[in-house]
Order: sequence, then C-alpha cells, then structure tokens
Amino acid sequence: MSVVPIKKAPEPTIRRLPDYYHYLKWMQSNGREVVSCTHIARDLDLDPTQVRKDLAVTGIRGKPKVGYLVTPLIESIENFLGWNNLTDAFLVGAGSLGTALLGYQGFKQYGLNIVAAFDKDKRKIGKKIHGKEVLPLDKLPGLAERMHILIGVISVPAESAQAAADVMVEGGIRAIWNFAPVSLDLPEDMVVQNENLASSLAVLSRQLAEAVK
Amino acid sequence: MSVVPIKKAPEPTIRRLPDYYHYLKWMQSNGREVVSCTHIARDLDLDPTQVRKDLAVTGIRGKPKVGYLVTPLIESIENFLGWNNLTDAFLVGAGSLGTALLGYQGFKQYGLNIVAAFDKDKRKIGKKIHGKEVLPLDKLPGLAERMHILIGVISVPAESAQAAADVMVEGGIRAIWNFAPVSLDLPEDMVVQNENLASSLAVLSRQLAEAVK
Repeated sequence: MSVVPIKKAPEPTIRRLPDYYHYLKWMQSNGREVVSCTHIARDLDLDPTQVRKDLAVTGIRGKPKVGYLVTPLIESIENFLGWNNLTDAFLVGAGSLGTALLGYQGFKQYGLNIVAAFDKDKRKIGKKIHGKEVLPLDKLPGLAERMHILIGVISVPAESAQAAADVMVEGGIRAIWNFAPVSLDLPEDMVVQNENLASSLAVLSRQLAEAVK
Repeated sequence: MSVVPIKKAPEPTIRRLPDYYHYLKWMQSNGREVVSCTHIARDLDLDPTQVRKDLAVTGIRGKPKVGYLVTPLIESIENFLGWNNLTDAFLVGAGSLGTALLGYQGFKQYGLNIVAAFDKDKRKIGKKIHGKEVLPLDKLPGLAERMHILIGVISVPAESAQAAADVMVEGGIRAIWNFAPVSLDLPEDMVVQNENLASSLAVLSRQLAEAVK
C-alpha cells in the first residue's frame, strides 16, 4: 500500500471518514465489490460532490460511470486514518471513566492502544485495570519519552485536568484526547480533541425537557 | 427552588453550562461565596457579555458591581439541566462499549441513571453487568412504556443502530444518546445527541500525523 502524503485535510471531512468506512465495510460484508458516489451519497444523506471530495483526501479517485472499488477504498481510509497500525497511548485518571475507557476494546479497531494508566491516588497505584497497570503520575514524563508515546487520554475530574495535561506535555506527548469537562491551556502545536460527555448529556436532557413540556 | 420555565435555550449555551458548573463547584470548594461575571469570563476565556447571557437562561441574574452568589448559581444550573433529579434510561448494546457505559458512575452526577441493558445476543441475555440486568431487545418497547422511560442510550455496532433506535421509538422513548458511528433516521420530534468517538479519534490521529510529519 502506498503511503499517503501528509497534507492538511478539513476536520469535517476527517469526521465523516469513519462513517464512510463503516458503510463500506457493511457493503463489503454484503458482497458488493463496486459502489458509485451517487449511491454512497444517497445512503448517507450527503451531497455526491461532497462524497467525491471527502474520499479524494485518502488518495483514491472513483472511475467515471463505474464508481469506487470497495476493498481498496476501505484500505485507503484505514491507511489515511492510521487505523492499520496501532498507536500506543497513555491514560491519566484511573477512576470510573478511566476504567471504562481502559476496558473498551473498540479503540483498537480505530488504531488506539492504551498501554498504561497513571494516577496520583496511592490507593490505585500498583493495581491492574483490565490488564493495564496503574502507575504513579510522576513517572509519566520519563516513560512517555522512553517509549515514544505521542497520544495521551485524560479522564480525571475537571480540577485535575490541566495538571494531567502539563505532565503529558512535559513527557513529549503531542496529542491529547480530553474527556475532562474543561478546556485545557496547551502549547500551540499540541493536537487536542475534547470529548465533553457532560455537555452532550446536558443538551440531551434540556432538549428532552423542552420537547415533553 | 423555583421551577425554571421551559423555554428554548441555544445549544452552545447549554454545552457551556457544565463548564460553568464545574468552575463554580471549584470556587465553592475554595470558600468563595461571590464571583463576578468578569472574573468567570477571564478564568474560562469567554466574553463577559456571553457569560451574562449564558447564565441568564437558568433564571439567575448577577447583582451589578457584586456579581453572582456562588451557591444559588450552582443550584440554578443543576435545576436548569435537571441534574438534581435522576432520569432513568435504557441502554441497547451490552458489548464492550455498553459495558463501559454501564460501569461509569459519573453519569449519575449529570442526572442520568441507566437502569437496564438490552441486547439481541442470547449469550448476553440474563447476565448482569455492573449490577444491571441484560434483557432481550424485544422486551424494550413494553418495558419502556410501562416504566415511562424517555431516554435511550445506543452502544451497538453501526449496522445495528437503526434497528435499536426503531425499537426505542416504538417504546415511546423521546431522546437518544447515540454512541454508534452512524446517523439515525428518526421522527422529527425526537431529541438526539451523537457521540461519535470514532470521528474524534480519527481527527486526533490524523492531526497528530500532520503535526509530526
């Protein structure tokens, strides 16, 4: 498989790629070998031009009047998103959410392999959660550097999140997946994705209250 | 506590309320009784006018030259978001993600109480996961109606998500928190929040690849 040149893709496009991927896997499991842009667009409720542009970022183009070959397109998306090689990550915060994230097998499908957890709570240190060891937080920078860990997952309460992020930055971590309900103050070249479950739940509860009024 | 009249609040405002809440709880734990709009705005990196507008939706106004009383403001946010009374919910999909969600204690803090799980896999039915029973999916509509369940959580693979949503609609569920990486086709009056972990992780991995190129 050829290496896709690293150029900036728009975030909405990247966010849609997993949807295309799951759709194409479903097509593949139904024995489909070829699929047209129009067909994908209709099934996913998108504009055909948008579909063509989105899929082009992975380096693959459909054939006019034929469409895309399903299997190479799947591989192209996997390649583009780095899903075909696992990236090791560290997690900080071995509480209830951290335990849930450590136990979720699905991340591996998306190329993420959480190899160790860190906490400052002495009662948690030394324990194993879903087979991953919980280490003292102050060991993170040294270990991250030695193991070339680039991704950190934060699952601590809001008030401890900035401290966890600072330790990650110190250890050379470059991308943070933040599940704490707070914005982090980070160097400009850091990559960050905020997963604010509290916010989503707030919107859901409130819109429900408005809907059943 | 007075009941806040149900009127439509803008989604970005609702998404920010949990951040204010966590910030105010932190102020409270540090013994602060009063906080000004400007102070909140500076600490949370927001515009003071925005802060004033956001907090006003909960029905509370600050006093000029004084600010907000911390404890009543916290209660007002809790009241607005329904966090002070637990809402029961059903979960469909007792796999790895479902298990993680069932085990996460933090949702209760945000007013969500997942009371039962449903699955179509016979090997899972009858088991207990984190104390919650796994029931056959076809029992959902009847039970949801009888128990007046209004919120459903979907944690099945992409290809089973629409079927899970259809069963929820049949049972009178009005709001869906969808963790499956796929868009759902729902009646117009349904409330839905999509939590696409695959998309977030795709953006994180890809931006990291672009950053370390």
